[in-house]
This record gives sequence, C-alpha cells and structure tokens, in this order.
Amino acid sequence: MTITKGFASDNNAGVHLRVMEAITAANKGHVLSYGDDEYTARARKRFAAVFGQEAEVYFVYNGTAANVLGIRAAAESYNSVICSDVAHINVDECGAPEKFTGCKLLPVPTNDGKLTVAGIKAHMHGFGNQHHTQPRVISVTQATEYGTVYTPEELHRIADYAHQNGMVLHMDGARLANAAAGLRTGLKELTGDAGVDVLSFGGTKNGLMFGEAVVFFNRELARNFIFIRKQGMQLASKMRFIAAQFEALLTDELWLSNARHANEMAQTLAAELGKIPGVKLTQKVEVNAVFAVIPMEAIPRLQEMYYFYVWDEGKSEVRLMTSFDTREEEVHHFAGMARETISCFVPSSPSE
Amino acid sequence: MTITKGFASDNNAGVHLRVMEAITAANKGHVLSYGDDEYTARARKRFAAVFGQEAEVYFVYNGTAANVLGIRAAAESYNSVICSDVAHINVDECGAPEKFTGCKLLPVPTNDGKLTVAGIKAHMHGFGNQHHTQPRVISVTQATEYGTVYTPEELHRIADYAHQNGMVLHMDGARLANAAAGLRTGLKELTGDAGVDVLSFGGTKNGLMFGEAVVFFNRELARNFIFIRKQGMQLASKMRFIAAQFEALLTDELWLSNARHANEMAQTLAAELGKIPGVKLTQKVEVNAVFAVIPMEAIPRLQEMYYFYVWDEGKSEVRLMTSFDTREEEVHHFAGMARETISCFVPSSPSE
Amino acid sequence: MTITKGFASDNNAGVHLRVMEAITAANKGHVLSYGDDEYTARARKRFAAVFGQEAEVYFVYNGTAANVLGIRAAAESYNSVICSDVAHINVDECGAPEKFTGCKLLPVPTNDGKLTVAGIKAHMHGFGNQHHTQPRVISVTQATEYGTVYTPEELHRIADYAHQNGMVLHMDGARLANAAAGLRTGLKELTGDAGVDVLSFGGTKNGLMFGEAVVFFNRELARNFIFIRKQGMQLASKMRFIAAQFEALLTDELWLSNARHANEMAQTLAAELGKIPGVKLTQKVEVNAVFAVIPMEAIPRLQEMYYFYVWDEGKSEVRLMTSFDTREEEVHHFAGMARETISCFVPSSPSE
Amino acid sequence: MTITKGFASDNNAGVHLRVMEAITAANKGHVLSYGDDEYTARARKRFAAVFGQEAEVYFVYNGTAANVLGIRAAAESYNSVICSDVAHINVDECGAPEKFTGCKLLPVPTNDGKLTVAGIKAHMHGFGNQHHTQPRVISVTQATEYGTVYTPEELHRIADYAHQNGMVLHMDGARLANAAAGLRTGLKELTGDAGVDVLSFGGTKNGLMFGEAVVFFNRELARNFIFIRKQGMQLASKMRFIAAQFEALLTDELWLSNARHANEMAQTLAAELGKIPGVKLTQKVEVNAVFAVIPMEAIPRLQEMYYFYVWDEGKSEVRLMTSFDTREEEVHHFAGMARETISCFVPSSPSE
Repeated sequence: MTITKGFASDNNAGVHLRVMEAITAANKGHVLSYGDDEYTARARKRFAAVFGQEAEVYFVYNGTAANVLGIRAAAESYNSVICSDVAHINVDECGAPEKFTGCKLLPVPTNDGKLTVAGIKAHMHGFGNQHHTQPRVISVTQATEYGTVYTPEELHRIADYAHQNGMVLHMDGARLANAAAGLRTGLKELTGDAGVDVLSFGGTKNGLMFGEAVVFFNRELARNFIFIRKQGMQLASKMRFIAAQFEALLTDELWLSNARHANEMAQTLAAELGKIPGVKLTQKVEVNAVFAVIPMEAIPRLQEMYYFYVWDEGKSEVRLMTSFDTREEEVHHFAGMARETISCFVPSSPSE
Repeated sequence: MTITKGFASDNNAGVHLRVMEAITAANKGHVLSYGDDEYTARARKRFAAVFGQEAEVYFVYNGTAANVLGIRAAAESYNSVICSDVAHINVDECGAPEKFTGCKLLPVPTNDGKLTVAGIKAHMHGFGNQHHTQPRVISVTQATEYGTVYTPEELHRIADYAHQNGMVLHMDGARLANAAAGLRTGLKELTGDAGVDVLSFGGTKNGLMFGEAVVFFNRELARNFIFIRKQGMQLASKMRFIAAQFEALLTDELWLSNARHANEMAQTLAAELGKIPGVKLTQKVEVNAVFAVIPMEAIPRLQEMYYFYVWDEGKSEVRLMTSFDTREEEVHHFAGMARETISCFVPSSPSE
Repeated sequence: MTITKGFASDNNAGVHLRVMEAITAANKGHVLSYGDDEYTARARKRFAAVFGQEAEVYFVYNGTAANVLGIRAAAESYNSVICSDVAHINVDECGAPEKFTGCKLLPVPTNDGKLTVAGIKAHMHGFGNQHHTQPRVISVTQATEYGTVYTPEELHRIADYAHQNGMVLHMDGARLANAAAGLRTGLKELTGDAGVDVLSFGGTKNGLMFGEAVVFFNRELARNFIFIRKQGMQLASKMRFIAAQFEALLTDELWLSNARHANEMAQTLAAELGKIPGVKLTQKVEVNAVFAVIPMEAIPRLQEMYYFYVWDEGKSEVRLMTSFDTREEEVHHFAGMARETISCFVPSSPSE
Repeated sequence: MTITKGFASDNNAGVHLRVMEAITAANKGHVLSYGDDEYTARARKRFAAVFGQEAEVYFVYNGTAANVLGIRAAAESYNSVICSDVAHINVDECGAPEKFTGCKLLPVPTNDGKLTVAGIKAHMHGFGNQHHTQPRVISVTQATEYGTVYTPEELHRIADYAHQNGMVLHMDGARLANAAAGLRTGLKELTGDAGVDVLSFGGTKNGLMFGEAVVFFNRELARNFIFIRKQGMQLASKMRFIAAQFEALLTDELWLSNARHANEMAQTLAAELGKIPGVKLTQKVEVNAVFAVIPMEAIPRLQEMYYFYVWDEGKSEVRLMTSFDTREEEVHHFAGMARETISCFVPSSPSE
C-alpha cells in the first residue's frame, strides 16, 4: 500500500534534511568501526552537554532494543518490570522484553497511559519471597502511548518511590522530545534531574533514519552494557552513521524544533476535529498524538487519503499522529474532509 | 583514534556513492513503516531476480542478527550448530547465538576456516539421545574468516550431507559477494543452487551503511520469521532505508564491481607483500583478505599509518582487509612502507 | 518454625503410607536410569489405563517444571499464554515460564480463578501482526487456586474455542485429583475427553514425596519432549522412584481416596467456620481449600496452633488447605478454637 | 531392558539403606514446605560441619540443575565458562547450561578429563573486548568423567589462577565423595580449602534417591540464589525429603564408606581386567570408574549379563562403573566371564 502523507505514525515520515546532511558529511574515508570513531566521540559530548555530564550514552538500532537492553542492564531474569498496560514494551514488542531479559512484566491498568505510585503499589509485594519475581524496574513512557505526558514532579514522585524501594526508573523516551516540547522543559529536567536511571532516547520518530540511544544516569548500571549490547545483536559496525544523526539532532535544538512542530500540528488537528459534530477527543493532546472517537463508517473513506490506525475497534477510537514534516495545509485538508465525510453519518441535531 | 584509510576491516569504509544516492532518493514523503512500503517490495523483487524466485528475504540491521535469527528459524534450543572454530558466530558475537537460540555451538578445528564433511562427522552423534543436543544446523562462512572460499561443489557436498541427515545448511555470507567475485560465479550458484537453506547476505562490508538480509531458500523455515525478527529486536521501522540500499547493491551488479575491486586490491597487496623478505603469506588470497606473518617489531610502525589488526600474536600473524574503496596507490604505498620498515628487522641473507 | 499439623498447604503433608511402601519396594538392585526401567514402563501403562491409550506421559520433579515444560512443548518464544490472573504460573513461579519459554503471559482478571471464553477473548487479537505475541496456549488450573473447579462442559467450551483458533489447552492439574473427586468424575473426563492437550498431573499435593507428570493427549506436542525435559534440567536419573510413586497413586484409586478425604475435611471445616459469627466464606468450597474472611486480630493467635496463610491482607482473607492426612478431630478442634478466638473480636449482635 | 546388576552407571544403583531409613523417619506429620523445616535446618548444619562454617547450601533435584544454577549464580549471559571437552556440562546436559545461563562453554581438549592452567590459558583472551564473551567461570569435574582426580594442589593452582583473573572456580562434584575417598582427604580440603567458589555436591550417585546440593564457599555468589533456584524450576516443596537424605549421607561418614567401597570395587575390577590378555586399561583408576579397551566382538556378550556402556566405539573403549552396592563376587564373576569371552577373540600368544 502506498501513501504519501498521513497520520499513521511519526515513523512513516522520512529523514530530516539536516540529519541527512549529517549522514552524507560522515561518509568520508575510513574510520574505526563499532564506535571507536570521532563521530561517536562528538555525539557523546553532545549528550553530555544536553543530558548532563554524568549521562553515559550507547547507541543501538531501534527503540525495542533500547528498551529491552536498558531494562536488562538494570534487572536480572528473576526480577519484574512494572509498566502501564498500554506500554509499548508490554503490547508492541512481540515479547522481546520477556525473551531477552527473562523478566515478567507487571502491567498496571491506566486510562491515560500514565503510571502513578498508587497504581504501582498493587504490584509491590513478594519482596524476598522466593516464589515471586522481585520488582526491580518501573518503566514509564514519556510521552505515553496515549500522547499524554508526565510532569517533572510526577516523574520525581515515581523515581523517589522506586529508589526508596531499591528499584530503578526506566523511561521509554521514544517521544521524549515531544514531551519536552509540550512541557516547555529541557531534556535533562525530564530525565536525569527527575530521577530517571536509564533512558531510551528516541530519534527515529523525530527525524532520524534509524538509531536510538540508551542513556544511563545511574552509571553503575552501564558497567557491562557493551557486552549486553553486543550479545543483544545491537552493536552497529558503521556506528558513525548513527552518531552523526544524533549529533545533528542535538545541534541547534533540532530535536526541539522538530518536536514542537509535530506537537503544533496535533494541536491544530485536535482543534479542528474537536469542532466536528460526531467527533469526540478522548485524550488530552499534549504532544503529537490525537485520539478521537469518530463514526466507524467514516473511517475507511478517510484512511484512503490520509492513512491512520484504528486504536480501539470496539469504541471506534482512532489515533492520529503528526510528525516533524506534517504540513499545516494537510491538517486543514484532512479536517475538512473529515467534517464532510462524518457529516454523512451523524444526524444533525435539531438546533443546528 | 582517527584513521583515514587502512586495512583494518572492510567495515571501516564508508558508504558507496550509489548506495548513498539510493538512500537520499528514498527520503521522499511518508511511506508505511515496518516493510509495508514500495521500496521493500522492489528490493524483494531484486532478490528474487538474483537469488531465484523461491528466495524469501527479510531485512535486519546487522550481520550478528542475520546469523542468529536465521539459525533460530531453523533450530530449537535443544539443537546444536556445527561450525568452524574460527566462525564469526563462534568467536566474535559475544555469545549472541547461545543467548538467543539456546543452542550449543560445536566447533570443528580447521586450518583455513573451511568445514569439510570429515570434520563435521566428529560431531554427528547422539541423535535421539536425550542427554545430547541434537545437531540440526551446519553453518559455513562464505568467504571464510580466513579469506578462503568454498567452491560450489564443496558447498554441495556439505549441503547434501546435511540434508541426508535431516539437517539444514546455514551460510554466513557477510562476504558472499567477495566469494562470488573471486570464484566468478553468481550469487545464486553459491547459495540456493548449492543447497543452502538459509543465508545471511551481507551488505555493510560491501558498501552499505547498515542492513543485512536473511534469505530463505527453504521457505518452510521462514514461516514464523516475522515474529522471530521482531522478538529479536531487529524490525526496522523505516525499513525503506535498508531496502533502498539493497536495491542499489543488486542493481547493475554494484555488489560485484565493489567486491571485485576489493578482491583485486587484496591480490595486489598480497603480490607486493609476498615479495618482501621476512613476510610470509599464511592463507590463500581468494577474496579481500591477506593473512601474513611479518616481523613483530614492524607492526606498530605500520599500524600508525595504515591501521590493521594482529590476528595471532603468538605467530606475529596479521590480517589485512581491503574494501570497495581501497585505492591502488594506497596498496603500493603501504607495500613500500612495509618493505622499508621490515627490512630494518630482517637480516639480509648473504646471497642478497 | 516447626508445626505438626495445620492448614498451610497440602504440600506440608508427608507421604502416604502406600506410596512410601512402593518407594521401598522399588529399592531393589540395579535398573537402568533415566526411565529405561520396568517401574517406569509399568507406571506408563497405568497412565494409559486411567487417562486413555493416547495419553503419553513424562515424569518431572515438580509442578513448576511440569507447567513450564508442558507449555514449552506447545509454544515458541513469540507465543503468548492466556491464563487467569491468579494462576500459579502467573504469580507463584518466580517468572519461570517467561525465563524458560520466552513467552508472555496474558492474565485475565477473575473472581473465582476460572477462565471463561469471554474473558479469554480480551486477549485474542494481533494474530499475524508481527508486533504482537501470538496467543497459542490457554492455561487453566484444575482445581483453581481458589479451590473452585471447571465442569467438563466448561472445559469443553474452552478447549473448543482454543482449537477453533489454532491454539492448545494446557491444564495445571496440581490438584486435578481433588477436582475429579469433587465433581465425581474420572480423571479422563476432565482432561483428554474434555479437550485438554497437555496436562500437568500433580502428585506431590496428593500424597507423593516428589514428582509430577506431564501428560500429552495431543501427542504431536510430545515429539521432542525428551530433549525439552533434559535441557530443562528435569530428567531424573533414578526415575524408578518417581514412577513407583505414581504407580501406587493410580492403583486401587489411591488418588481418589486421598483427594476425597481432603475434600471432605474442607467441607467440614467450611461448614464449621461458616457458622461462626464474624467469619465469611469467600469462595465455593469445591475441593480442599477454604477461603474466608476472619477478623484480622484473630489470625496470629490461630496460626500459632494451626499454621495457615493470609491470602489477601487488605481483605483479611485467609486460605485454609486440607490434605489427605488431615484428621477430622483437628478440623473440629481448630473450628472450636476459631469460634472462641474470633468471638473476642466480634461484637455480639443485640439479638444474641 | 531389565538388568539386576551391572557396571552401567552408579546411578543404576538404588538407595542406601540408611538413606532410606532417614526418608522414612522424615515422614512424620506436617512441616513447612520449601525448606522452612527442621530437617533442612539440620542438614544445613551438617554441611557447615563438614564443609566449613562459611559454606552455604541449597538443595536442588539433580546434578544438571546443580551445575547450571551454580554457574548462573556466578555468571551473566555474556560470560563464558571454561571446562574440559568431556565435561558433563559440555556433552551430557543437552545444552542446559547454554539455554539457562546464555553463556558460551569453552572446551579445553584433555586426555584425562583434567583441566590445567596451561590448557585454560588458550581461552583467556578478549577481556574487555565487546565482541567476545568474557571468561568468568572455570569449571572442573571432581572426580572427572574419566575417573581421574585433581589433587588439592592441582585445584589450588587452578583456583589461584581463576581468582587472579577475577574469575570463579566451579566444581561439578557429582562424584566428589569418590574423589575424597580416593585421595584420602576430607571434603573440605577438596573444595572450600582448595579455593572452590561454588560446588555441586552430588548425592544420587552415592546412595541417595534424588537430590544434589549447591554449596557456596563464596557467599557473595549466593545472594540471590533462592530466586535463581525457583525460576530454574528446582525448588522442592517437600524439601525435607532431600534434606533428610543428605543428613544421613553426612552422618557417620556414610558418604565416605559408600564411596570407598565403590572405589575398592573398581580397583579390584581393574586389577582383574588388567590381567586379561587383550584388555588394555586406558585411564588411571582413581575412583569408581574403569576405562578399558576390550575386543569389540566380546562387548555384546558381556553386556547381556552385566550391562555397561561403550565410551568410544572407534577405539572399542568401554566404561565400567562400580557403586556403593557392587558386590565383590560380582566383580570376580564378571572378570571371569570377561576372561573367558575375550579369550575367544584374542589369538593366544606363542609363549602361552
């Protein structure tokens, strides 16, 4: 199936021009492979500048690997990982966390994808009991799979709770840039400063071609990570081409302008859709995702032109994602189409 | 450490220009992620054209993953994998095969990195015995880690033996292109036609940025591979950028011209080195690797200018790899330096 | 801590006299190890007589292993296992299923520990979708962790649903004997006849010293089980001592008389406790477990004499298990103590 | 196949009478399960008395599990384990170590099953190199699979080498009792005192029904072992029945008298066989195993009466194991039969 634009996912977008230029620029001569090159050294410095000097960064290929290997660095196979029921690690990674780490995932039911200490507590038992997995990691997604965000205070609360209980806080930051843009904070405030121990910092959904970063704020956890990464099949030989992309992303706040634009497009889209009779927004729009209930009959027709996914068939709820390259006219065009299409299926109210 | 050129590894090279152009050309608009895009469809067709209609291809990020996941597709955890003692899967993947597949690797001692039926037989026992792992996969590397190659006949013999015993033949083809160039055969003759069941077809060492292909000639093995790949953390979201590279590599035989050039540079290098008193070539030069014993004292000085690896410290044996972008003058320059440097450490014989 | 009797668990009991006699009788001379002995052959025949000729049985050491290895025989690592939220495999095996099989467990919330097709359906999606684990096993516990039972019809319904969807039905039958006794059915009616594909048949909780049986009704699943068992560290060298126990258990319906007695003791206990003001039974008493809410203050005093476990601290709910060797006078004695102790903490109602 | 006596394996024997009595004696009333019972407490004290106060002991079901879980306690999945090429963990456990630990096993070729520092050194490279598994465990078998033994000094040397390199020494002591009897040392001298960090202490081959002990001399390694054991499916519910056996084994040196008797029978057997023309002993007889080359044609006839295994078909080498219950007349009877049978196939020399 071919599409040109749409709201299917921010990973349907291509590569940002400045990132592509960085890739091209890195294609000069020979450099040592596996990360012993200047590009990687420079990218590491960028991370330290943005995330703090204590941040230790390792590049991997994709988000699933960043999550799984980061968790593995913190947990033994008899540990468990507390996460939201809609967490990507819980529902969209084909069991990769269980397979590689051996850990059990303990899902917490949520409405908005956000863990709370109260929700986490339901799984906080069995410590020292040999029959039970030992809770060791709390994993939050920032921004969540529902496009909602944790404030720094909310993260702090969870981090403190984790640390008080001898646990670590993992963050799946596939859309951390969007969260920071939405909250008007820096990346550091939302991660190391908030108590995050290990972070998956996503690039692919924000304009990179491939590559994610595992960032350790708790450096003790990173001690053997080079072996975990290699045994996890995630050591890139031509590492410079991941490093160069991240260097570009962290230069002149490209991460921020990309994320901010995507977020703004989601705001516009939500505003437009919210005005359409028969459409109901179902989650706060805090980053680049819009969740909405729209009449089921309208969905296929709209998908033809602008592809997007049905999130919950039972509720006729759809997910619309914007990205760094979504154009404002596309949003308006789609919204117009939506208004027109949906009107066929919604009886006008007498007062209109 | 910075280097510009050298003989360290073919993965120290960058990306071939035509591959880079294909990447740039693929950066147009939105396409569906995870392989449901036209680039991937086109690349698949290329593979079918080159490897045969029955070949079924899946892209992954790197060679370790291609090997591990390909083997996993053929084997259960209680199986074992027979390979050469210097096989990459045995010595250079940090135990990734054992970790992900659970299989035991059964190494066969070799001098030139090549398995033979006679060598394999030493491990062919214990079938049906519950105490023993069940041999299921024979894995050959083509070209081998020593830069030697299997002829189609040699492969056939091993494949027949495997199939007669209910086993499958896996090929680590990280340098398959170089082998085909060296043997003046097509890729199909060396793989599906020779009885290979599942192949890791390498791109990164032959001019790609990243990406390897798992090619199934025995399609039954591929039945659940999409789940193995995802659970193996190797599903690329922006798959088009791997696919486009492979499309370029398989267009107008770029794979062949790249490999042939690298091979020729190794021939030249070997010819030059072979003439230097005090240097002894230790393996046949059949692809893009030269193995040679040179005086230990000369090594650091030569590495300063052209980096390369010591293969066996005890024997003072080094490995020199050429690549698609090695220039002839570099070879001559290095050979000149080597002659000069080595002459300091080798007593001239009376007759000279 | 020492106890002599109590209601902590049916595995606090010792070994039934006839089982011990069988063990002693098996201690004659040498026999081949690892199951190639006459005791094992005879026990297998017993299983065929009781469970049907198609039943194929393998002995392992304990219930966790029986469950994990049975599931492994049916599932690949990218599969998932649907079970109740209180299933032993989900909460009491320290993540052994995830570690050994790699599978994700998908828990279904239940009030009484019993899965229903409706509950299962919540997890029946994502088939063929590479991002999702592929549901493959439905696992029921018979009797459940709450002491409730599935009727043959209820099992049939779940089995049919499983098979219609290309899945298999696994039964954790740690207390299958108690369920059959409670339902007044045979073991076959509740397993192979009801559509169970693979069963863990428990012995330890019903008078054995150690040993559980993995019984395959779907023999295709058993094809490589000898390797799974050995690699799973569950092959007993002196297998005769497990086999002899099972032979005894399946002779003259010892399994039934043991289970029936335990069940009757639970009935008596429940009847007595149910009459005590301030005690509320919380689950149907269908086998050898009694769940009851009793005043929290009374618990420690009662535990001193007859140990038992608190099931849910928040609700002040306790679990009392009876076993094949529970004596009626103990039940009455405990009930008397309970009445007395609890009366101190429950205000008498005005009418009393 | 039925046998009454033979030389197949020491695990073809039954249970020693005193062990059986201990089992029967332990079958009294209820005790807490999973090791929280007095029998286990008492057995632990016995271990401390015999192996030293620092020894920390955990019971598991069998030797494979003791080895695998003990190694797991010391190693992460990216580590490797150096062992002899004939080590039980390498050839007779169906890949259980690889599957559960993820570690690679690095076999050292040996003639007598004994590792030496020189042999180990061949694998001591790649430390800190992310491409290579990190050697972490040296595993010795005492007595070896060839029936040879390490002296305390030999063990010391290996232990020192291990510790100097940040590694740990694991001992597969399935036949440790036989080694101690053969060497006339205590169990402590051969384990903790010699630098062993973690030991599998075997019982089943020395008169127990089932059960092995994982003994940690380096207690740091034991820190999370209760979870490793449970997740490894090796936590026995009615633990008292393993504990009671070990208590008996360690009381009045039953371990020693059993082992000494088995060793003496092997000495007698070797002496008798050694005198038979056409028989050649191939290993030193230091414990309860006799390795001998005998004419191939004689083997089946001898096996009919006294079963034993062919060790190496190519060499016509057989392994004969004696056990605690081997009777002297059996040895003589077998030797007589052997002399007679073999004489048919060996041309008598002129001088006879």
